[in-house]
Amino acid sequence: MPPIVLLTDFGGQDHYVGVVKGVILSIHPTAQMIDLSHDIPPYQVTAAQFLLEQSLPFFPVGTIYVVIVDPGVGGTRRPIALRTAQTYCIGPDNGVLTPVLSQITEAIVLDNPTYWRTPQPSQTFHGRDIFAPVAAHLSRGVPLGQLGEPLDPRTLVTWGLNPTVPTPIGWQGQIQYIDHFGNLISTIAASTMTAGVIRQVKLGETVIPGGRCYGDVPVGDCVALVGSHGYVEIACHHSSAARVLGAKIGDKVYVAIQSN
Amino acid sequence: MPPIVLLTDFGGQDHYVGVVKGVILSIHPTAQMIDLSHDIPPYQVTAAQFLLEQSLPFFPVGTIYVVIVDPGVGGTRRPIALRTAQTYCIGPDNGVLTPVLSQITEAIVLDNPTYWRTPQPSQTFHGRDIFAPVAAHLSRGVPLGQLGEPLDPRTLVTWGLNPTVPTPIGWQGQIQYIDHFGNLISTIAASTMTAGVIRQVKLGETVIPGGRCYGDVPVGDCVALVGSHGYVEIACHHSSAARVLGAKIGDKVYVAIQSN
Amino acid sequence: MPPIVLLTDFGGQDHYVGVVKGVILSIHPTAQMIDLSHDIPPYQVTAAQFLLEQSLPFFPVGTIYVVIVDPGVGGTRRPIALRTAQTYCIGPDNGVLTPVLSQITEAIVLDNPTYWRTPQPSQTFHGRDIFAPVAAHLSRGVPLGQLGEPLDPRTLVTWGLNPTVPTPIGWQGQIQYIDHFGNLISTIAASTMTAGVIRQVKLGETVIPGGRCYGDVPVGDCVALVGSHGYVEIACHHSSAARVLGAKIGDKVYVAIQSN
Repeated sequence: MPPIVLLTDFGGQDHYVGVVKGVILSIHPTAQMIDLSHDIPPYQVTAAQFLLEQSLPFFPVGTIYVVIVDPGVGGTRRPIALRTAQTYCIGPDNGVLTPVLSQITEAIVLDNPTYWRTPQPSQTFHGRDIFAPVAAHLSRGVPLGQLGEPLDPRTLVTWGLNPTVPTPIGWQGQIQYIDHFGNLISTIAASTMTAGVIRQVKLGETVIPGGRCYGDVPVGDCVALVGSHGYVEIACHHSSAARVLGAKIGDKVYVAIQSN
Repeated sequence: MPPIVLLTDFGGQDHYVGVVKGVILSIHPTAQMIDLSHDIPPYQVTAAQFLLEQSLPFFPVGTIYVVIVDPGVGGTRRPIALRTAQTYCIGPDNGVLTPVLSQITEAIVLDNPTYWRTPQPSQTFHGRDIFAPVAAHLSRGVPLGQLGEPLDPRTLVTWGLNPTVPTPIGWQGQIQYIDHFGNLISTIAASTMTAGVIRQVKLGETVIPGGRCYGDVPVGDCVALVGSHGYVEIACHHSSAARVLGAKIGDKVYVAIQSN
Repeated sequence: MPPIVLLTDFGGQDHYVGVVKGVILSIHPTAQMIDLSHDIPPYQVTAAQFLLEQSLPFFPVGTIYVVIVDPGVGGTRRPIALRTAQTYCIGPDNGVLTPVLSQITEAIVLDNPTYWRTPQPSQTFHGRDIFAPVAAHLSRGVPLGQLGEPLDPRTLVTWGLNPTVPTPIGWQGQIQYIDHFGNLISTIAASTMTAGVIRQVKLGETVIPGGRCYGDVPVGDCVALVGSHGYVEIACHHSSAARVLGAKIGDKVYVAIQSN
């Protein structure tokens, strides 16, 4: 039985995550639930996208992702479920599921109240009343198609930073995520770097040398490398690059490459 | 097998939660354990009560709640276990279990050291030495009555904010909880609002319009609504009402209602 | 099946912990995983040691600890697995596993790529590519000896604060850990206190009276006691001793004892 993976901005302080789990267990007592993160900054769709994308390759086939970063809850945005060859994704249609859009094999609107917790869901907590019960039923074997009407994937909301663009000496991208170590993860994918390795990276007025691992530079210094995420990232050895460099999401980065 | 739900002020940083789980698994290797929250502010009995009350309807029948917010550990307060038709609750007799007091069908003092981890429990960590092992034995099927002597429920410590009171135009209550989004949850239950809907809410000198969902007001504005918790709450669209309004637990709120 | 216990400095915000769990579940779908803590301050080997040591007595025999506080990842430090009579420990050879060094019955270098996630592990995330898959295989029953070559335990890196030393009136030690309540845990073990009980503790210029539990002093006052960890600790009743006393890891403490 593949796990249900929970990714939300609910935080760990409140009862929201616990209640979602209680609802799932009430429907599927032996469901296996994994917390991917509940510390997405409130309403930060971009951060949730990054964490979803990073996790997709590492969970078993059939894993059910429940992604709830949902500032528009109670408004007109649709609750949806998507299927790919590898996974199911459940969440609001606000762009948060963009990382799987290109692999969709089936998409539905969650409009069948039979599989909700109640026919009158709360206007503010679809996680509890729609997304959690739907995930529980799906994990018990209810076919996706029973959970609602098919929708046209071309109508799904998409959301994202600017694409990476080539420059005379390499590539230009943006900071897309800052992890809790303070590592700065850019949008420049390792797969675009086939022509060479990182010579240096420019962020604002600062130039950071290329390297292979954090230990390539003295403690406190910064290094640019292809990180475990598959993107060019900037790290500081035993320190926070975000703090040292004063960087934030969306900042531009320029990578200069050199031949292998 | 119903889950053991853990609600504490232990925080996630230290080993306390892990040790509690290790003790439970040592007694009941296949116990299913759910973290409701470990981020209750230290010693904040009121916050724990709110989270317990909010979670009770959403977990399976038979769920065992272990609630450890226990500033008086090692003193004279009693360790107790309560049973209702739906659930078991284990914790200190300091008011933290007040939300289930009206539904008690059985109440005992946890004074049988057979079911403790050790006959000489630590003076500072009853979670590890009394509450966790008792929960593990209970989840394995040990009858509640074996865990200690019966106690008279009328002797239990109770604790709570002031009751909601009617006003000429609606109701007066207090802020009872602030969640990590900064939403302000009042003590005014939705069930008291049957005579109408929220026209507006007054908090200090600020008047907040009534609404139905967060999106009813522009980004940055506040709205008063009946939230998923079943209470009147004040939220700000994409922002923190607690920060915008400078509110804190215990602040008075006045709800004005209008006919449906 | 004993649990896999995870202890890292990955934090709860990012996808790192989730990805580690996904890798484990992909190899061992029914693995039982327990979060000991992911909030070790980045790179704080001392804090991880303390939490590991504190947890060892409370988990079932056969538990597999995965301890990842790994500032040297990608450098020359070895990935290792240790066995004791009670437990397995997996992590980097940087001193973080020091608490089990004296009980080792078998020690290996994790140099068999058959049990890695990929023969080309990331330079920055051995948790995902080496430690997690090795733990999953071990929990499925792969013998430790297959995971790599034996190593000489005398070559393992050790790390620790200064040992406790006797004084004319008691003992001198250091603060080794500060928990999220602000309790200050010293290096002075309860087992060294057999000659008497705590009369008082000196920390900087402050003298703290000895006691038995937090409630022995008025709210806001500090007390020195033998805590649940088995060490002399300093706590403040309903408050943070760390904040009240301005203490930090490594500060010296002097315990004066008196006869029982």
